[in-house]
Amino acid sequence: PNSMLSGLPTTIFTVMSALAVQHDAINLGQGFPDTEGPADMIEAACAALRDGRNQYPPLTGLPELRGAVARSNARFYGLAVDPASEVVVTSGATEALTASLMALVDPGDEVILLEPLYDTYAPVIRALGAIPRPVRLTPPDWSLPRAELAAAFGPKTKALMLNTPMNPTGKVFDLDELDFIAGLLARHDVYAICDEVYEHLTFGTARHIPLMTLPGMRPRCVRIGSAGKSFSLTGWKVGYVTAPAPIAACVAKAHQLLTFTTAPNLQRAVAMGLDKDDAYFATLAADMQAQRDLLSRGLRAAGFTVLPCDGSYFVVADIRSAGFAGSDAAFCRALTERCRVAAIPVSAFYDSADPPDHLVRFAFCKRQPILTEAVARIHAGL
Amino acid sequence: PNSMLSGLPTTIFTVMSALAVQHDAINLGQGFPDTEGPADMIEAACAALRDGRNQYPPLTGLPELRGAVARSNARFYGLAVDPASEVVVTSGATEALTASLMALVDPGDEVILLEPLYDTYAPVIRALGAIPRPVRLTPPDWSLPRAELAAAFGPKTKALMLNTPMNPTGKVFDLDELDFIAGLLARHDVYAICDEVYEHLTFGTARHIPLMTLPGMRPRCVRIGSAGKSFSLTGWKVGYVTAPAPIAACVAKAHQLLTFTTAPNLQRAVAMGLDKDDAYFATLAADMQAQRDLLSRGLRAAGFTVLPCDGSYFVVADIRSAGFAGSDAAFCRALTERCRVAAIPVSAFYDSADPPDHLVRFAFCKRQPILTEAVARIHAGL
Ligand SMILES: CSCCC(=O)C(=O)O
Ligand SMILES: CSCCC(=O)C(=O)O
Repeated sequence: PNSMLSGLPTTIFTVMSALAVQHDAINLGQGFPDTEGPADMIEAACAALRDGRNQYPPLTGLPELRGAVARSNARFYGLAVDPASEVVVTSGATEALTASLMALVDPGDEVILLEPLYDTYAPVIRALGAIPRPVRLTPPDWSLPRAELAAAFGPKTKALMLNTPMNPTGKVFDLDELDFIAGLLARHDVYAICDEVYEHLTFGTARHIPLMTLPGMRPRCVRIGSAGKSFSLTGWKVGYVTAPAPIAACVAKAHQLLTFTTAPNLQRAVAMGLDKDDAYFATLAADMQAQRDLLSRGLRAAGFTVLPCDGSYFVVADIRSAGFAGSDAAFCRALTERCRVAAIPVSAFYDSADPPDHLVRFAFCKRQPILTEAVARIHAGL
Repeated sequence: PNSMLSGLPTTIFTVMSALAVQHDAINLGQGFPDTEGPADMIEAACAALRDGRNQYPPLTGLPELRGAVARSNARFYGLAVDPASEVVVTSGATEALTASLMALVDPGDEVILLEPLYDTYAPVIRALGAIPRPVRLTPPDWSLPRAELAAAFGPKTKALMLNTPMNPTGKVFDLDELDFIAGLLARHDVYAICDEVYEHLTFGTARHIPLMTLPGMRPRCVRIGSAGKSFSLTGWKVGYVTAPAPIAACVAKAHQLLTFTTAPNLQRAVAMGLDKDDAYFATLAADMQAQRDLLSRGLRAAGFTVLPCDGSYFVVADIRSAGFAGSDAAFCRALTERCRVAAIPVSAFYDSADPPDHLVRFAFCKRQPILTEAVARIHAGL
């Protein structure tokens, strides 16, 4: 078997979800909602199944979904996108990320990553013969180490991966940070792969700004969205890439080699979802914010320092402040076994050696009574 | 953009399907049925959507689908398979092939391919930094050039890809050929990636034999099946890999990097499909055989020499015998424009230079009246 893959540990999401089942724990680990997505989308997916939409759709996606992605880009970000040449539908954001990397990097290229990061980025880069170049954000506020980031760019740098709103930190990059990143990309002629699956999940005054909307950035950005996170349908695995036509054409070729197409009935339902009114997206974010607040309050009351969180499904807590001396991994194991609440050690989101091991990620994409019960269990168990 | 992908032509399936739409042609190019899959599977997929099966399923697939894959291996081939450790569900056979290659090959490894072949094999191998080693079957009967195949094995050979029943040739490898291949694999300690998506589509006395069932082959074979071809639901993109546990674990890691999971409602419906009785699979093959016969007769009456076809969706015709002097690609273009029937040039299934250019592939996975009309158009137009 392939040596890089053989050495890859089982993903922490699978490990913790299995441990949660074993201990009948509330699963605040893997990020999936415990409510259903919109009923009209589910009915649309059923109707499409019955309506004979079960054979290969076009490789780049159903025209109605590509059109909806273009409209969504225009409505939320003022981006003018050609649905015929600048959108590619993929089998989820995971495939979109891998296809975008395949499309952009050649063996030997370097790709700059901001840690903590989603656990597929670095292995995919390695599988393509390219080289991950991690740069760490600085907790507790996850600030951008500007000098260090600038120093990471070199003649071999081909791309930077930017996840905002960011998993696991809940950070939403602001305009000043994005401006700084854009300057580096332009100066060094580097692409950005923008993982924006939490684009509709920002809280308070935080506002999601796609890097692609900054001056000069349109030709060098690949923007990735996902139905899973925007419609609470994580199992559907429908993602979409927006990119300038020459890059989108290359992403489509990678998609051809990875999955070729994506189930047309789900595509049709997602097209309907993307056209939902602003109130749908506002309610999605407001509900999630209330859940963030409930969980954060509970964690604080239990003695944790809770790090700032402006978006995503996740909040990070400092376990030292609650008097826990072991590692984040040991804490998560103990929490699952003793309190029957599962969470994810933030060290699992680092590719480089010696990650911080005092931080734990909790998912708040769960119903309020469940979060209340989780907080009660943590209180009682600690 | 990536240099290998940039150089890849748009897949012939997309090119010919687009040309077919443009000329209002009957599409005997891309292999997808024009009938619906089983109504009970479609209803099962709807029911699962409504039943809250819309969040991430387990990474390797729903237990009920892995169980059904194991039962299917036992029923049809007498293979004992552990559903927990030896089955991985993927987002279609395309992903299964790519994940299997990722799992098995390291950069610099060689992979032996039998030409003609499906057009993703060689580019995926190159994307992984490995080297395709094509060996050509000999038309018109697509016999195995045994000495040449044996000579292709060397110290860097890591895997062989075997597609039976074979696209585009309709060849079904017999026991003697498989024995010969098995001997080479054992002698050189090489894996086989077995693309068996047409496993239930064999005709007459031809019988599908998985290479995995031959003595000594169990530990070195990865067997790939697909709901698309077994249930006439090509758009669902649900595939499944059967492999020994250490390889399956590595395929699962590749799957994690490629798509992570596959829509649970479709998985549940496919689990039901795999448990269908023998009559379902017999009828599927008998109907397809009748369609093969109808189309082959019509092509012969129009002056084509029709090559032997024992399985799959496809039959190959020799265009020289019909008095056409140009290339297969020119023929396919002319056929679409003048006769309004689309087909695929067999030269598109060769990775190596100077492919044969006198052969054309016709898909017969279409209703009989459509095939009759296609034959009439060809007759009238030539
Ligand atoms: C695809 S499993 C991981 C889900 C997720 O986005 C997360 O929990 O970080
Ligand atoms: C995935 S498009 C190609 C479909 C097919 O199997 C073929 O036509 O050969």
